[in-house]
Amino acid sequence: MDLELAKRLAQPARTRIILCVLDGLGGLAQHATLRSELEKAQISNLDRLAARSEVGLTVPVGAGITPGSGPGHLALFGYDPLRFDIGRGVLEATGIDFDLMPTDVAARGNFCTLGPDGNISDRRAGRIASDASARLVERLRDIKLPGAEVFVEPVREHRFVLVLRGEGLGDAVSTTDPQREGVPPLPARPLDTLSEGTAALVNEFVRQAQELLKDQPQANGLTLRGFAKYPTLPQFPEVWGLRAAALAVYPMYRGLAKLAGMTAIPCPGGMTEQIHLIRQNWDNYDFFFVHYKKTDAAGEDGNFEAKCHALEEFDSYVPELLSFNADVLMIAGDHSTPALMAAHSWHPVPFLLYSAYCREGNAMHFNEQECVKGSLGTFPAVDVMPLAMAHAMRFAKYGA
Amino acid sequence: MDLELAKRLAQPARTRIILCVLDGLGGLAQHATLRSELEKAQISNLDRLAARSEVGLTVPVGAGITPGSGPGHLALFGYDPLRFDIGRGVLEATGIDFDLMPTDVAARGNFCTLGPDGNISDRRAGRIASDASARLVERLRDIKLPGAEVFVEPVREHRFVLVLRGEGLGDAVSTTDPQREGVPPLPARPLDTLSEGTAALVNEFVRQAQELLKDQPQANGLTLRGFAKYPTLPQFPEVWGLRAAALAVYPMYRGLAKLAGMTAIPCPGGMTEQIHLIRQNWDNYDFFFVHYKKTDAAGEDGNFEAKCHALEEFDSYVPELLSFNADVLMIAGDHSTPALMAAHSWHPVPFLLYSAYCREGNAMHFNEQECVKGSLGTFPAVDVMPLAMAHAMRFAKYGA
Repeated sequence: MDLELAKRLAQPARTRIILCVLDGLGGLAQHATLRSELEKAQISNLDRLAARSEVGLTVPVGAGITPGSGPGHLALFGYDPLRFDIGRGVLEATGIDFDLMPTDVAARGNFCTLGPDGNISDRRAGRIASDASARLVERLRDIKLPGAEVFVEPVREHRFVLVLRGEGLGDAVSTTDPQREGVPPLPARPLDTLSEGTAALVNEFVRQAQELLKDQPQANGLTLRGFAKYPTLPQFPEVWGLRAAALAVYPMYRGLAKLAGMTAIPCPGGMTEQIHLIRQNWDNYDFFFVHYKKTDAAGEDGNFEAKCHALEEFDSYVPELLSFNADVLMIAGDHSTPALMAAHSWHPVPFLLYSAYCREGNAMHFNEQECVKGSLGTFPAVDVMPLAMAHAMRFAKYGA
Repeated sequence: MDLELAKRLAQPARTRIILCVLDGLGGLAQHATLRSELEKAQISNLDRLAARSEVGLTVPVGAGITPGSGPGHLALFGYDPLRFDIGRGVLEATGIDFDLMPTDVAARGNFCTLGPDGNISDRRAGRIASDASARLVERLRDIKLPGAEVFVEPVREHRFVLVLRGEGLGDAVSTTDPQREGVPPLPARPLDTLSEGTAALVNEFVRQAQELLKDQPQANGLTLRGFAKYPTLPQFPEVWGLRAAALAVYPMYRGLAKLAGMTAIPCPGGMTEQIHLIRQNWDNYDFFFVHYKKTDAAGEDGNFEAKCHALEEFDSYVPELLSFNADVLMIAGDHSTPALMAAHSWHPVPFLLYSAYCREGNAMHFNEQECVKGSLGTFPAVDVMPLAMAHAMRFAKYGA
């Protein structure tokens, strides 16, 4: 939906909307059992809710397109992800409250383990502890580059953020992460002429960092990706007329929400704390974005059972989520992460919307097969917000 | 579909298309019975027809968007309702054959009942009889405004049309109808600088009218909305190559059809007369638009049973509609009007298309739940005309 039209139709109401995003929600059936994670998991609360909801499958970006977390979430917030593009580096930097300047170039960094042959043997350096990672980040702050200031900031586990500040930097720099093990990190390459100097700075940064890390047992290397400058997003509260709170454990999702203009409320404690914070802030916000990461983490690890458990854990919170009596409660995913693929995928994502104005009764369970039959069918994820606004009685009639 | 492409593909044929629009057709299930109006009503003719037709659900404007009658009909006629915008005032004026000039500003008027406190106690003045309403309109013709000619024309029951004629009038004037009872009418506000003078004229009109109506027991007030100038629509007969007749009881729908270039044949008598007029004009037209209002009226009144009865009444005419052996017979709605909501809504609308070239057999009944399963799925209402043209063998092949 055109965001100017959204602005025109949005009207005040006292209604409340909760959007739960189960990261990487969608899955694929195991060949042996012909059942997907959602079909295998014991999720009776979600199943019962699905039977009383409008259900369907969301297409995050387009047919066959596997989204990153940024586009997947942008679509659910109503932004066309083909039009609004946010680099991973900016997401990470915003997520840790780093104050980016418009000319800064930010990148997401990963510590990794390099074998004696220089090839990557572990892309996440054994997911080293956050405090150990922070000490290494400290060490990288000694790096000096000609003509640019260098900021290195810890994120969580093996992740950090690199920010280059200076004149005439470009963000069209290729990733140094080969996205697999058994090969060395890639050199950064410029993808336009403005970014030639920046790519050279990045390679110099990597060279010095490698030197500083070489004595480390696990985190003796690094990769950089998602080079990006600050984007400008129409602000969510202005577009939809909603006071919006984001409840996300991981920095990237808080960062994304903040770029969209939501208030990110820190909640390191996970779902119990997220639910507590919804209750505490019920009167102060109209819209609550709740992010649940465990489904994606298990999917990425290729761990079918762990993903089922993550779904079951979320399912146990559904009664509490229902107890708020929100006018609209949505269960969505930013993309699929089938354990079978151990990666994000393009498959449409199960979705349900519960309100007093539902065409219910098409699906008896909350899973891929049942959602196909739902009254919402297979539909673009950018339609989620307009539907939520309608069900929350927050959209005026269009035309006479 | 791009209308230039439609023009290019349209080819002559001797085939006939009937489009029946049941206003506000779509509904929602009652919480007690879990059945919608279409599921509750005894509509065996429509059910049988659905089983032999292609069925689906139309999305009038877009996900979550609740259309007015104008956009809902425009979409069914093949016009993108986000591109072509027709104000209610123009619709009403055209519907009563008022000869609008391009510089005129027209508005839809409602007589209403004001309580002693000045608040609206009945938005429709008890739906006063058309002749009583016409006498009040007569009285309002005494109103004089500085620098603009005033036309007031009766429509039906509590409805009338106001037309201001003069130099430099703007139609960006806000509604005076608060859309609910228990509050006073709103003052007209200008929404752009061109319309500042016009809004002042409107407020002066209302002031004088209030004075002239103050002794009335029921219709002692009025509201004005849908301020609009004449739009230009590509003409339906040229776009689709169809000689088109509109058979609608209510002026607004005749007005809309005329703006699109159809010939509106007066038929105050309802379905019996509408069917008679199809027969009488069978050789003179290729396309018949039949409008049925009662479904929407009952829905707007929140009267579930009355909407079921309206559906049953329409159902009884289906055998006669089939007896024409039209090449394409379509049963559609311009939007949903669930009795549960007593208002238009955004929910997709049941649709069926019957021709010799149908992929039939998906739905056994004509209702929301069955249409979800249909071969057409959930699809944009602007696709209705291209589908009709195809099934009527009136579209040439695209490309070699």
